Amino acid sequence: MRNLATQFVREVRLTGGLLADRAKVVRDQVIPYQWKALNDDVPGAEPSYAIENLRIAAGEKTGKFRGMIFQDSDVAKWLEAVAYSLMAEPDPELEARADEVIDLVGRAQQSDGYLNSYYTVMAPDKRWTNLRDHHELYCAGHFIEAAVAYYEATGKDKLLQIMCRFVDHINEVFGPEEGKKRGYPGHEEIELALIKLYRVTKDPKHLKLAQFFIEERGRKPHYFDIEAEARGQNPDDPWFNGHRYSQSHLPVREQETAEGHSVRAMYLYTAVADLVLETGDKELYEVCRRLWDNVTNKRMYVIGGIGSQAHHEGFTIDYDLPGDRAYTETCAAIGLVFWAQRMLQIEPRREYADVMERALYNGVLSGMSLEGTKFFYVNPLEVDPAVAAARHDHHHVKTTRQEWFGCACCPPNIARLLASVNQYIYSTRESDVFVHLFTQGEALFQIGEAEIRLSQITNYPWDENVMFVVGVVDPQTFTLNVRLPQWCRAPKVKVNGEDIESLEVVDGYARIERAWFNGDQVEVCFPMPVEKVWSNPRVSYSAGKIALQRGPIVYCFEEVDNGPNLSQIYISADAAFTVGKDEQLELPILTGPGYRRIVSDESLYTTTRPKVEGVELKAVPYFAWDNRQTGEMRVWMNEG
Amino acid sequence: MRNLATQFVREVRLTGGLLADRAKVVRDQVIPYQWKALNDDVPGAEPSYAIENLRIAAGEKTGKFRGMIFQDSDVAKWLEAVAYSLMAEPDPELEARADEVIDLVGRAQQSDGYLNSYYTVMAPDKRWTNLRDHHELYCAGHFIEAAVAYYEATGKDKLLQIMCRFVDHINEVFGPEEGKKRGYPGHEEIELALIKLYRVTKDPKHLKLAQFFIEERGRKPHYFDIEAEARGQNPDDPWFNGHRYSQSHLPVREQETAEGHSVRAMYLYTAVADLVLETGDKELYEVCRRLWDNVTNKRMYVIGGIGSQAHHEGFTIDYDLPGDRAYTETCAAIGLVFWAQRMLQIEPRREYADVMERALYNGVLSGMSLEGTKFFYVNPLEVDPAVAAARHDHHHVKTTRQEWFGCACCPPNIARLLASVNQYIYSTRESDVFVHLFTQGEALFQIGEAEIRLSQITNYPWDENVMFVVGVVDPQTFTLNVRLPQWCRAPKVKVNGEDIESLEVVDGYARIERAWFNGDQVEVCFPMPVEKVWSNPRVSYSAGKIALQRGPIVYCFEEVDNGPNLSQIYISADAAFTVGKDEQLELPILTGPGYRRIVSDESLYTTTRPKVEGVELKAVPYFAWDNRQTGEMRVWMNEG
Repeated sequence: MRNLATQFVREVRLTGGLLADRAKVVRDQVIPYQWKALNDDVPGAEPSYAIENLRIAAGEKTGKFRGMIFQDSDVAKWLEAVAYSLMAEPDPELEARADEVIDLVGRAQQSDGYLNSYYTVMAPDKRWTNLRDHHELYCAGHFIEAAVAYYEATGKDKLLQIMCRFVDHINEVFGPEEGKKRGYPGHEEIELALIKLYRVTKDPKHLKLAQFFIEERGRKPHYFDIEAEARGQNPDDPWFNGHRYSQSHLPVREQETAEGHSVRAMYLYTAVADLVLETGDKELYEVCRRLWDNVTNKRMYVIGGIGSQAHHEGFTIDYDLPGDRAYTETCAAIGLVFWAQRMLQIEPRREYADVMERALYNGVLSGMSLEGTKFFYVNPLEVDPAVAAARHDHHHVKTTRQEWFGCACCPPNIARLLASVNQYIYSTRESDVFVHLFTQGEALFQIGEAEIRLSQITNYPWDENVMFVVGVVDPQTFTLNVRLPQWCRAPKVKVNGEDIESLEVVDGYARIERAWFNGDQVEVCFPMPVEKVWSNPRVSYSAGKIALQRGPIVYCFEEVDNGPNLSQIYISADAAFTVGKDEQLELPILTGPGYRRIVSDESLYTTTRPKVEGVELKAVPYFAWDNRQTGEMRVWMNEG
Repeated sequence: MRNLATQFVREVRLTGGLLADRAKVVRDQVIPYQWKALNDDVPGAEPSYAIENLRIAAGEKTGKFRGMIFQDSDVAKWLEAVAYSLMAEPDPELEARADEVIDLVGRAQQSDGYLNSYYTVMAPDKRWTNLRDHHELYCAGHFIEAAVAYYEATGKDKLLQIMCRFVDHINEVFGPEEGKKRGYPGHEEIELALIKLYRVTKDPKHLKLAQFFIEERGRKPHYFDIEAEARGQNPDDPWFNGHRYSQSHLPVREQETAEGHSVRAMYLYTAVADLVLETGDKELYEVCRRLWDNVTNKRMYVIGGIGSQAHHEGFTIDYDLPGDRAYTETCAAIGLVFWAQRMLQIEPRREYADVMERALYNGVLSGMSLEGTKFFYVNPLEVDPAVAAARHDHHHVKTTRQEWFGCACCPPNIARLLASVNQYIYSTRESDVFVHLFTQGEALFQIGEAEIRLSQITNYPWDENVMFVVGVVDPQTFTLNVRLPQWCRAPKVKVNGEDIESLEVVDGYARIERAWFNGDQVEVCFPMPVEKVWSNPRVSYSAGKIALQRGPIVYCFEEVDNGPNLSQIYISADAAFTVGKDEQLELPILTGPGYRRIVSDESLYTTTRPKVEGVELKAVPYFAWDNRQTGEMRVWMNEG
């Protein structure tokens, strides 16, 4: 198994449609906006201090470090997003700004290679004393990811050299060798970053360090306990008791269920999958498989969000998926997309791409306003602003997107994912090309000696037809593998206008192997009726409820369209919803019949069944809610 | 308006049935058990330290005060329960033990009349410096209630004298006069206690002090702010911001909605109603009426529990009544019974007694195990032990009754209510006798010069027939007013075997005015089919759900009877449930048909409607759940 994705990642261009539009919003709006935010220049938003901190660390300003201990990572994620943006569209001014930031990062690096504003400014003698709670290795990971992306985008290796020096320093401090610390990060991130670095540098010590961090995790005696005792703290602090929070309750190979902080979990599992890609370790792949099964078949919301409670920002137990108190952090859905991408590279199976698509179009896109200037950190599936304001168990729920956050991990994470979403569409393996996502664009593949161009012409996810046009100089034999999404009951595939006799489907992909001529066309149709979705009956919250989905898009009901008290509304299993268009959102919406239980009198309890009236309902894509006015919102509606 | 309740309170004897049984359990089991608990003599239970604290305060032991700052009140509530128990059944040994405790309380009293173990032991120079958070006046109130009850039960006035001295001291410290503090308790309780004291002592200063505490509450400048500043604290501490928590956000006369800590609210509203009884203040009665409407028509669970969140232990907003995260503290349901009793004394209206009955038979009785040795502090309407263990927003939920609590307000509160439940059955007004509750027993009324005996012969709430037999020496003219509960669709009333022509019903009471002869009989029948209950459609949690009720008893479904994953089960609106008997519980139970959504495969989301199977369901009285084995429980079932 090898990661071929990077071989063609600069050769997929999105030329239209929803994902291209979102990537454009990131380029045009989000990256400039976030630059202002990092420089504390957005009126009314919580200040970031991130650039300021680096200046202080570089000795160019005086003052204290401010903001979250991992504030550096916001700068790194911004740089990474900039790199992807430059790959898609050159922008000398933006590149010059990024170069300046990289220079600043270089000046903030210490003479021994160490790089972290918080410790450099506030506690230079305390480096590496609290891996459990603090984020030195996490921030390092994000700068490494930025360095790799910026090198690939621009060919400039300054940040890459900075980070190689820092990794050399980390290698001196951590490892299995006598005299080194057997530590690993409380918040995973550097593991996957080191594997990205290894793919560029081919330096085996970069892979080895990633492997050490992954394999050392959760071993006994527990490093976080040793470290806590060394700080004079009680390692039995209940918050970390059992170490589930940081997925270090067990060695990775022994983990059976997804536990703890869901973003951390996703970054770890992504790194494990990356390690499988590099080493072919079958046992580790089995770990990935069973954790994948646990997350996606027992602990994932219908929007592809994960993390069902605010406490610990993470997982609880199987089938515990309340919509109103969901945490479903935008970053966790993003992490699930990362993981799915790696799983697809190991083995192209529809289930990975289905989840990737679900998360991307719903729980990730929802994190950003249509205009790209406001963000959700938490993505609930049921919101009543009055309840959220009154109930402490909803304290984490913002009922409208925010301009910025004190803990601003999510906005730059959306930016870097959407700016690089072209990397999630395809993968290759030997003479196979796999199509995981459908979106208008042009791709270039190298299969053996041959260059193959592939155009996708589609308005997916809104329209059901996708046309592929093959571009080759000479006829080429290769296999085009087109995912047939599980949500689609009856996909149709034609080659050059003709139905395929006995379509071969392997692991959910239509396998079309032939000698391809220039201009050959594959037409795929994914009929997109409005579907009612039911959850597994074990999910207490959504038992007796229905959600609406069309194609990969999950819909929701907003107060602005359907009036207040959405819980009074119910839908029958056979209600016919049709597709329309909302002029204000400029997006396809659904309309159909429902019922509203009428409040006949003021009694709180009655032995008379509430009367109902028929109502016309309107649902909008979940990701687009809260773009007109604030109010109630629901994904799961009572069935009746 | 005058409170006539105390005129006959010693002349109602319960001779059988559920309430008598519960009162007997309190006498035989709870009072001895709680005596051990107060003396830290229950193995495995959280220690109370309450008696120990009094000994230290009395100078007879050394050591620090331990337990909650209001630990004294547990002793007071135990004494009060003992008093009621002695009224029902003399017990010289128990009385001697109570006398000893009263002697100890006397020795713990300071020379100036002050009485509070915490401050006496820990901070004698800090008395009355934190009325907002600490509980000196609250504990005083409970000792006053105990003193009045013990005096009425035994004629012994030692505790009454102790408390009168303490009240004299309080009167020197607090009041509107120059030089006195214009303070009032953070936790209401002394207000209603002072009115009870006034009814015994007839001393107007006792009433006046109660009135001062009630009327001063919430005035500007805010006493709790002044006091906080005097302690060097920031009065804007967010926990108390706005002072809703302690119902001091507004003067009582301006309050429109029930806010904050629900037990505190109930004790305040009870005291306000008591004040109305004594003063006839119509504006204050309007305050009671609108708060009553808000609580009982917008913020009360179907079990008569109140307080829908753990944070602040109290109210949130109208119609926010989630069953799983209900706080529904046992003490709050008890407080609602107190308030209802006072409202009935002001004006006998069925709605007051209906709520009293609902709370008593459901949300109060559930607080104690059938054997009387284990207690619920929180009474949820939906429990899944696995979810409760995993979710931090369920941290307050105990999924099985506990032996004792560090904060043990509820167990002694149940004891004192159930030991005095005979005081809640009747009230009188001029020549009217009102029957609010139905339970087997004998009552003696004084109407003018005449003594009237009234027997109730019934197995209510399990059986639908109630027979009243009048006992008079000479024929007497008076009006018997029998509540026709709102839950009963078609009550029937006969006098001496004959239907009444055109029954007069006033405010929900059947009004039977006549000359009564010795042995006259009134037969009432309250047909008790199993009823489906729906909540107001505005209640999001129970929209699309059904609860079962028979007579005043709300039922629930337990895992032990119906298997796990109760959320998979649903009931149709026309399902026929029948009454049976559970051998183990020895209580009437309900059986009937339902449906269970089947888990056909392991997929988390599907576009195929889940298949269902018919199942036979069994429901038990809510108050009796968790008396066989722990597991899931639900009151509200999905309707389908």
